[in-house]
Amino acid sequence: MTHTREIPRDTTDLDIPNRLLLGPGPSNADPRVLQKMSVPLLGHLDPVFLTLMNRIQELLRYTFETTNPLTLAVPGTGTAAMEAAVANLVEPGDRVLVCVNGYFGMRISEMARRYGADVRVISKPWGQVFSLDDIRQALAARQEKLVALVHAETSTGALQPLEGIADLVHAQDGLLLVDAVTSLGGLPVSVDRLEVDACYSGAQKNLSCPPGLSPLTFSPAAEARLQNRHSPVTSFYLDLTLLGKYWGAERQYHHTAPISTAYGLFAALRLVAEEGLEQRWERHRFFARRLWEGLQGLGLEFHVPEAHRLPTLTTVCIPQGVDDLLTRQKLLQEYGIEIGGGLGELKGKVWRIGLMGYNARQESVDRLLDALRFLLGK
Amino acid sequence: MTHTREIPRDTTDLDIPNRLLLGPGPSNADPRVLQKMSVPLLGHLDPVFLTLMNRIQELLRYTFETTNPLTLAVPGTGTAAMEAAVANLVEPGDRVLVCVNGYFGMRISEMARRYGADVRVISKPWGQVFSLDDIRQALAARQEKLVALVHAETSTGALQPLEGIADLVHAQDGLLLVDAVTSLGGLPVSVDRLEVDACYSGAQKNLSCPPGLSPLTFSPAAEARLQNRHSPVTSFYLDLTLLGKYWGAERQYHHTAPISTAYGLFAALRLVAEEGLEQRWERHRFFARRLWEGLQGLGLEFHVPEAHRLPTLTTVCIPQGVDDLLTRQKLLQEYGIEIGGGLGELKGKVWRIGLMGYNARQESVDRLLDALRFLLGK
Repeated sequence: MTHTREIPRDTTDLDIPNRLLLGPGPSNADPRVLQKMSVPLLGHLDPVFLTLMNRIQELLRYTFETTNPLTLAVPGTGTAAMEAAVANLVEPGDRVLVCVNGYFGMRISEMARRYGADVRVISKPWGQVFSLDDIRQALAARQEKLVALVHAETSTGALQPLEGIADLVHAQDGLLLVDAVTSLGGLPVSVDRLEVDACYSGAQKNLSCPPGLSPLTFSPAAEARLQNRHSPVTSFYLDLTLLGKYWGAERQYHHTAPISTAYGLFAALRLVAEEGLEQRWERHRFFARRLWEGLQGLGLEFHVPEAHRLPTLTTVCIPQGVDDLLTRQKLLQEYGIEIGGGLGELKGKVWRIGLMGYNARQESVDRLLDALRFLLGK
Repeated sequence: MTHTREIPRDTTDLDIPNRLLLGPGPSNADPRVLQKMSVPLLGHLDPVFLTLMNRIQELLRYTFETTNPLTLAVPGTGTAAMEAAVANLVEPGDRVLVCVNGYFGMRISEMARRYGADVRVISKPWGQVFSLDDIRQALAARQEKLVALVHAETSTGALQPLEGIADLVHAQDGLLLVDAVTSLGGLPVSVDRLEVDACYSGAQKNLSCPPGLSPLTFSPAAEARLQNRHSPVTSFYLDLTLLGKYWGAERQYHHTAPISTAYGLFAALRLVAEEGLEQRWERHRFFARRLWEGLQGLGLEFHVPEAHRLPTLTTVCIPQGVDDLLTRQKLLQEYGIEIGGGLGELKGKVWRIGLMGYNARQESVDRLLDALRFLLGK
């Protein structure tokens, strides 16, 4: 038993500094949410925990604006919810159209390929969005079983309009999948009204909850697709039939729910419902406009024109002569503020500034603008 | 926008009762761990968070008793770690032997099938364990690329001896996968000494951390298997090459880490290292013996003979004439104590009593025995 002594172990604690998280996520969790993360655990089949799961489902339906029965939180981060949506709706050989105008569209297409889909990609430069005509043309060229779009591209700051797309997709018996990671809780997602078939999000953006449980909803048509699969879903962990039986009346054991994060998500969704979606959307718009005005005042330019600019995530062009990394490091070390660098083709070209959930408030705008004013020498 | 108002929303809070969790898991989180769950979030690429990830890796190596470079926490529950191990080591058509003597062995075999393996199962009645001869005979009949065993079967309470198995498996170039969900941190797992190639666990058992991040380690041989795959891993979320690049020097973005749970896991692993593995194992043995003596004093019988009985999870036979569900309900509602019912073929036959991590202490033993004494009319 001397063996274990050979492996070094440093048991000292680590100081966690206070940060204002204004990057692409995680955003700061609401203090009222954080507080719930320390509540003692319940068993994952405790009657009180099952009630809490029901309440989370109800509040997720409110937040997604849907009555979909199959609405739950996937036990993982937003990427797990993305994979759950793709893995359950795709069978080997299925035709899938992915509209790619940023990093997360690419990720969806990669996942669909891994699950054996016959993937076709249509592309736009990062920061632009697809028109109804773009989708119409693509669907005229080939019938698709699934069409995937990113509502709010976290890598570009662009807001993809969704009006009318479902009609085109449904006209050829396809299903519409929408990534709402950076939109849910910050701007309208309107799953039922827009007839979206599969939609998912993350907890750590506009919901202001720590990451680890991710909202997902499937329309009855998507659920039917799931029930009529010819092959089992390769992933057991993300199999929505099994997840649905744990969240549904059967309460069939599938995994040990992330209990603490479920407490947090419940608290976060209650705060969304207490504020009201419309008020919450308006708050995000209001402080985004204040941020934009301030950034313009500093002479900064935007990567995305206002018509398609996300209120929750703004991409600003890094001014010529300014050191990307150094400026972000100073922001973090000297001002305690995190903003994001560019991803993929926007690396080194833009900064990504999030005003999400709890952080969509005056203090965030003021602190960031003050710091940037100093760092940019304005 | 009247739409959202039609969806009912109940924003009242829910009282979370205090429970003593003596079931198969989750076990109570250590209060010192819970406290860390409320610490404000860091970004998942913040230098301080990256240091915390490094520290988690070091402490996981200590806990697994390994020097494996590829040692990390999978962003999901124990089932996610199980799937990560299987999905990354199995390619379509690979021969896999799964030794099934309980529910979780079955689950491994199901996962291996989903990922396309040519699965062979050898079985034992639930509660029994495999001998070296069992494994030798099975491997003589067919060469296997992967052999999977459950070290501590959470469904039966049986402890599978591991000595000597790796030699048999490695002799034919196979890899050994071991499920240590209910053993890690409570009894020796000794990954390096026993030459285990893939091993994983959960956070919410003997580590006394909330679930949501799950320890996993791959030997250099398992890592080589991963690097030499002919096909990509179907799951993107659980692709260990990608996860390894986030946990490794590249820090390549893959997912947004469950930050709060990472704080919790770090605190939990520090407590393991402060106590020391040997002391911790001895504490689990000590209080398990006290529990066993007490249960015997109440006239209860054990499902697993002492030679193979887990210290962390005890299965006791439900006495004739005692109502399983009613007794457990009373334990929960009147005494605030959760124990587990039987799973699968042991449903209605046994209770599962966990003394894991923080809960392996005198108070747990006393409270449970007092309550059972009263409920069983002894």
